[in-house]
Amino acid sequence: MTPHALGDMAPEAFRREAHRLADWIADYLSNPDQYPVLSQVAPGDIVRALPDEAPLRGESFDAIFEDFERVIMPGITHWNHPGFFAYFSITGSAPGVLAEFLAAALNVQAMLWRTSPAATELEEVTLAWLRKLVHLPGDFEGVIYDTASISTLHALAAARERAIPGVRAHGVNGRYRVYCSDQTHSSIDKSVILLGLGHDSLRKVSSDADFRMEVGALADATREDRAAGWTPLAVVATVGTTSTTSMDPVPAIADLCALENVWLHVDAAYAGVAAMVPGYEHILRGAERADSIVLNPHKWLFTPFDLSVLYTRHMDLLRAAFSLTPEYLQTTEISPVRNLMDTGIQLGRRFRSLKLWMVLRHFGAEGLRARLAEHMRLARLFAEWVDASGEFERLAPVPFSVVCFRSIPPALRGDDAALDAHNEKLVESVNRSGRIFLSHTRLNGRYCIRLAVGNLHTTAQHLAEAWELLNNLR
Amino acid sequence: MTPHALGDMAPEAFRREAHRLADWIADYLSNPDQYPVLSQVAPGDIVRALPDEAPLRGESFDAIFEDFERVIMPGITHWNHPGFFAYFSITGSAPGVLAEFLAAALNVQAMLWRTSPAATELEEVTLAWLRKLVHLPGDFEGVIYDTASISTLHALAAARERAIPGVRAHGVNGRYRVYCSDQTHSSIDKSVILLGLGHDSLRKVSSDADFRMEVGALADATREDRAAGWTPLAVVATVGTTSTTSMDPVPAIADLCALENVWLHVDAAYAGVAAMVPGYEHILRGAERADSIVLNPHKWLFTPFDLSVLYTRHMDLLRAAFSLTPEYLQTTEISPVRNLMDTGIQLGRRFRSLKLWMVLRHFGAEGLRARLAEHMRLARLFAEWVDASGEFERLAPVPFSVVCFRSIPPALRGDDAALDAHNEKLVESVNRSGRIFLSHTRLNGRYCIRLAVGNLHTTAQHLAEAWELLNNLR
Repeated sequence: MTPHALGDMAPEAFRREAHRLADWIADYLSNPDQYPVLSQVAPGDIVRALPDEAPLRGESFDAIFEDFERVIMPGITHWNHPGFFAYFSITGSAPGVLAEFLAAALNVQAMLWRTSPAATELEEVTLAWLRKLVHLPGDFEGVIYDTASISTLHALAAARERAIPGVRAHGVNGRYRVYCSDQTHSSIDKSVILLGLGHDSLRKVSSDADFRMEVGALADATREDRAAGWTPLAVVATVGTTSTTSMDPVPAIADLCALENVWLHVDAAYAGVAAMVPGYEHILRGAERADSIVLNPHKWLFTPFDLSVLYTRHMDLLRAAFSLTPEYLQTTEISPVRNLMDTGIQLGRRFRSLKLWMVLRHFGAEGLRARLAEHMRLARLFAEWVDASGEFERLAPVPFSVVCFRSIPPALRGDDAALDAHNEKLVESVNRSGRIFLSHTRLNGRYCIRLAVGNLHTTAQHLAEAWELLNNLR
Repeated sequence: MTPHALGDMAPEAFRREAHRLADWIADYLSNPDQYPVLSQVAPGDIVRALPDEAPLRGESFDAIFEDFERVIMPGITHWNHPGFFAYFSITGSAPGVLAEFLAAALNVQAMLWRTSPAATELEEVTLAWLRKLVHLPGDFEGVIYDTASISTLHALAAARERAIPGVRAHGVNGRYRVYCSDQTHSSIDKSVILLGLGHDSLRKVSSDADFRMEVGALADATREDRAAGWTPLAVVATVGTTSTTSMDPVPAIADLCALENVWLHVDAAYAGVAAMVPGYEHILRGAERADSIVLNPHKWLFTPFDLSVLYTRHMDLLRAAFSLTPEYLQTTEISPVRNLMDTGIQLGRRFRSLKLWMVLRHFGAEGLRARLAEHMRLARLFAEWVDASGEFERLAPVPFSVVCFRSIPPALRGDDAALDAHNEKLVESVNRSGRIFLSHTRLNGRYCIRLAVGNLHTTAQHLAEAWELLNNLR
């Protein structure tokens, strides 16, 4: 087909530019540490460097790409950099990037089975593969969303559907409680607000010295609430909290939820995938009795952002909460099919399963296990350095690949405010280096440095560099 | 850097495969009509063709890509096909595909300004460009979400925040109404359900013979509701409804909303971008007084799926509804920065503005206007054929690029049930051809064929083919 004047970029121009990008990206991924990990631009730099109107005439891709390199690249914080140890360190692995290139070109919108059967069915296939890898039972059905925030929102919407009679038609009415620990992710707060339950409906239960939810406190809270006229609606237990990657005691929480007939949602967005590593099967113990569980392959399963998975044994409730088919989306197939639009707030859906499929196949179960195990080994190695040093102290256990610690200069010991300021400055100095990017949290009020391993480019050598920098700058 | 054994795919392997995909995709985009537009597989075909467990050992990309071609491709419905006239026809244009390749490789997560300043600031720049192109005033601030469903959800969450005192803390309490027409998109239904307002809170106002909301009926409804103890919370007006692309009378609705002090949300997800075409500026008249407006560049602005834009003059209310920063996401910058996580339910965000930027620059304002005008010209051309034929009748005006019509064989005239069955069969026959993909809707209860133009590969010749097929198969 010859492209017409009002058509797309000519295929031969696309071919040329795609080859150019193939080389550019291959170079970039061979050596992401040629850039500072944390972007060094100042607020407003990018805006000021660009015109304030779209060009009138179309521009060559050459000119656009030149600006990409000149203006955009300095404003990138390099999540691919082996020195990225902030938040949760992630990898958009090469097979995943290739899959995204294909998915963008296919540009399918998988709202209905027929708008691309492969997108709907590959989601089913890959989610069964992942479910088996982490040893979840077969009555869990999965669905892919963009982010854990959206997965959790849907889980709690299904819980609301079950707990509040007539909520779909008549709205929220009454006093309902959702429980989580004081270590639980902020997406739970946002979900209860969005769902119209109100932030008051979220009760945060205390956690123990190892940042695990106290089940006794949870039991007390539900008892107290029932007596005061609140109906318990859901408990969110976390396997791998954001601050310290602590694990709530899911089996005991599951017992309580069964007793109280309350929805159990397990947030295993970051750590759940580690259940595939021999010796770590236990981390999802109890989750097999949950009503829903979220895993994020874009966090620690080498899948480019975004791809979050919600498993639930109550897909019917998700449908009851959301299914609604206007005439223009009615279809007739010979046999019943699943239409992904029925299980979510979003009508449109990208073909996300393609990248998960290519990642799972390229690395294979053994390759994934070995890589996850290696990240945990690296984190333990770093924790050993911290523990062996008189100049630092560790502030939390290291069950997975995150280490929480702080610098304790002798002159400041015992003065938490001074230690906080000192450690905050230390993190800033390290981050300014452009070699290493760390983030922080607070534990029992104390400022705490977090080092998260999760990037396939990271080796012990990069950890040693981080350790050296921390020691030189403290 | 030499890749290590537990690292990612080797950079040279990536380079080789990326070049292979560059050629494959260039071939595909040169000739998407080499495939049937609507996938011809049967339900379950893809699942059955794939193993039910992930491979133990990692596989070569060769093997994976072979399965992609053998198993996945037959299950793809080709949204790139020039004969794709169903739903809203879209284009993930070549510059957008290239941008997605880059974005996947960078894999930035733009929750905070500092986690990639360029992602946050390029969003600001491109949304200002787009705002100016469609002539919206400068007090509209924009934010990119994935889909229109999510944009609308946020608009209504902000409206709820304004209308219901204390809703963030205490939840929904009381009787609130959202108004839309009987032609409004189902995402409004899903939003009021999710927000805990209940489906009852949505009141659908009748539309006129041209499928435009009746403002008199809207005024009556709000008056009636106030008298019955409901508080009007928001009105959703649509510019380009999903069935017929009709336009609600936004100026008159804006007058009423101002008088009633009710949030006005304008759903211009599909048609809003046409306001940039000379002679079409009026389509967003009244929207300059709206509280929020949604435009979807992934629908009719040649941007790969997904990218939806919400403009609002009350970004403070979105922040009030959602902003919530746990310690591990606190940052300190020299000057105030915008953190995208503060204006949405989703914490994580892809670098979506990159594709919009590349699309706007590659085509330029003139190029975009010419292409949108061409799609409207093609739709009018098809409508003329329908109007000139004694065998078909048009069922709605054609303000943009969608034509609603049906076949009216002489023997069946006057028998709507028979005509419905006949047209349903006709659409099925056309779709089975693999050359053309049409969808349908119902208007005043009657089954109606929809033909939507929106693909940059589509020319008058493809419309002629659709017309010939319809005439041959009727």
